[in-house]
Amino acid sequence: MSTGLDIAIVGATGLVGGAMLEILAERDLPVRRLIPLASRRSAGKTVEFRGENISVQALDDFDFSGVTFALFSAGASVSAVHGPRAVAAGAWVIDNTSQFRYDADIPLVIPEINSHTLGTQPGIIANPNCSTIQMLMALAPIHRAVGIERINVATYQAVSGAGRGGVERLRRDTVSRLAGEEPAPDPAGLSIAFDAVPQIDIFMDNGYTKEEMKMVWETRKILEDERIMVNPTAVRVPVFHGHSEAIHIETRTKVTVPEVQKLLNSTPGVQVFDERALGGYPTAVSKGAHRDSVYVGRIREDISHPRGINLWVVADNVRKGAALNSVQIAETLANT
Amino acid sequence: MSTGLDIAIVGATGLVGGAMLEILAERDLPVRRLIPLASRRSAGKTVEFRGENISVQALDDFDFSGVTFALFSAGASVSAVHGPRAVAAGAWVIDNTSQFRYDADIPLVIPEINSHTLGTQPGIIANPNCSTIQMLMALAPIHRAVGIERINVATYQAVSGAGRGGVERLRRDTVSRLAGEEPAPDPAGLSIAFDAVPQIDIFMDNGYTKEEMKMVWETRKILEDERIMVNPTAVRVPVFHGHSEAIHIETRTKVTVPEVQKLLNSTPGVQVFDERALGGYPTAVSKGAHRDSVYVGRIREDISHPRGINLWVVADNVRKGAALNSVQIAETLANT
Repeated sequence: MSTGLDIAIVGATGLVGGAMLEILAERDLPVRRLIPLASRRSAGKTVEFRGENISVQALDDFDFSGVTFALFSAGASVSAVHGPRAVAAGAWVIDNTSQFRYDADIPLVIPEINSHTLGTQPGIIANPNCSTIQMLMALAPIHRAVGIERINVATYQAVSGAGRGGVERLRRDTVSRLAGEEPAPDPAGLSIAFDAVPQIDIFMDNGYTKEEMKMVWETRKILEDERIMVNPTAVRVPVFHGHSEAIHIETRTKVTVPEVQKLLNSTPGVQVFDERALGGYPTAVSKGAHRDSVYVGRIREDISHPRGINLWVVADNVRKGAALNSVQIAETLANT
Repeated sequence: MSTGLDIAIVGATGLVGGAMLEILAERDLPVRRLIPLASRRSAGKTVEFRGENISVQALDDFDFSGVTFALFSAGASVSAVHGPRAVAAGAWVIDNTSQFRYDADIPLVIPEINSHTLGTQPGIIANPNCSTIQMLMALAPIHRAVGIERINVATYQAVSGAGRGGVERLRRDTVSRLAGEEPAPDPAGLSIAFDAVPQIDIFMDNGYTKEEMKMVWETRKILEDERIMVNPTAVRVPVFHGHSEAIHIETRTKVTVPEVQKLLNSTPGVQVFDERALGGYPTAVSKGAHRDSVYVGRIREDISHPRGINLWVVADNVRKGAALNSVQIAETLANT
């Protein structure tokens, strides 16, 4: 199915939708027709694709017949309603929400890791959560080589993970707090300006947030290993673009720092940037925006555990964490 | 020695020195004479203490005779030269730098935890690193109750930990990056504006930074237990005041969340703020400035370990992390 594809972007006016358009324009997937879809409120706006302005259509009225790939990024409830409808019309749905991720019969895919779980008949493919994707890009090669028993991870997540609204709010609230004024309360959560907020998504009964549990559930599903123990703390920080993660793993078999560097250096999509000197590590500002790779630094043996390794992992959460990964799933399907 | 004390503040024009003046003014230590000291460059400036403007004197020329407590916070090299000189003149030196912390015969003191290590003859007392103090305020009661085997901690540290320069730089660089301009490079390190930087202090041979190793060394010394394993990742975030820490502990004996809450609720200097709801946890903005307590939230059982507990700990790094702890050491000495 590699000549002339009709591709629909659901949520085309959002931050991830916009990145999908950019990434599709940059890459080689042969797009015959690009169909931007959004809510009725956004219908009639235009988006740019390969230098052309295209009108956004209302999702509600749209007939998916003839569409090969429908990339959804407009919230779980939208995917719940319209995803199955698109599949019924014959489209592959690549869903960037949490709606279907934990269904046993829905593949949850990072193409570099588990593209073998993709089916052959159009259906729904779930795109993992941004924090999970960049973590597993760095950990999957290590897991394959020596086995990972346990992951302890603390995140430093950018506001772009909360969409355009998150980005605009950080900008606005930063100006307020610089001026000594307290931003107006927002039902979406605490203001992140000059703060670090240890809550993303709702609380679960076990005291973890749903964002944290996503990393637990998705790690096991993607690595196809229910034995892996994961202990995440997910924290939003005042960063516009790029999630960072302090990851501490315990492996089944001892692995050294040079072995980890060698494994990651030969992993497509991963770049090791690890010098023990000022600036010799990735950060959100230096490596977390407008880049496709997942960057790994601060690789060191954990002095508190005989088989422990620490890593610092940075990636563009909107690209590899969402839009790019979805496009890569489409590319993988198109090439099979 | 509780009536009429002469107290010298070395580094009185700095951020921690200023907080020491504020805290001494608020509390009950009977100050007869307050002597602000600084480098020659700052001599002649004035600082305020209890409504009075006091001239800053040059440290180099100052004779410590008659001074009961000399609180040092002007860098390790200043303490190295002038600390022993102050002790020779009969003063207690309470040193807020890393100069003497790891000397076996120098007490390293958090008064709520190990004031029993204070001597009776004037000498040097070291004030621990800010990140260690707030972590151990939360962990010492748990260690006493059930024993802690291992600590895995990722920090979210405020720029006030780097002094006035750090605070001013965040303000300046935030304005630059909001305007789309890249801040000028600074030999002090990467700009933290809208970023998360996984380096504080220099790199050690084992790949940890010195800031991280301080948390290892100081935890063992203060808790007087060389068996405790500590694995820190220290990260600077764009927060003005208040360090946050995602702490994961493994205890020797299993402890439940209600037991931890009960232990911490009865610990002076610690406040539990832990509701599983929006805003139901401490953050740097809400609890990290102008407060004396160490705040603990997000207490939950670690689903990846049978004897694991997670906590989120926030405190004012300039007060309890530095100035307040130093004043409390002086108070403890004054009352014995």
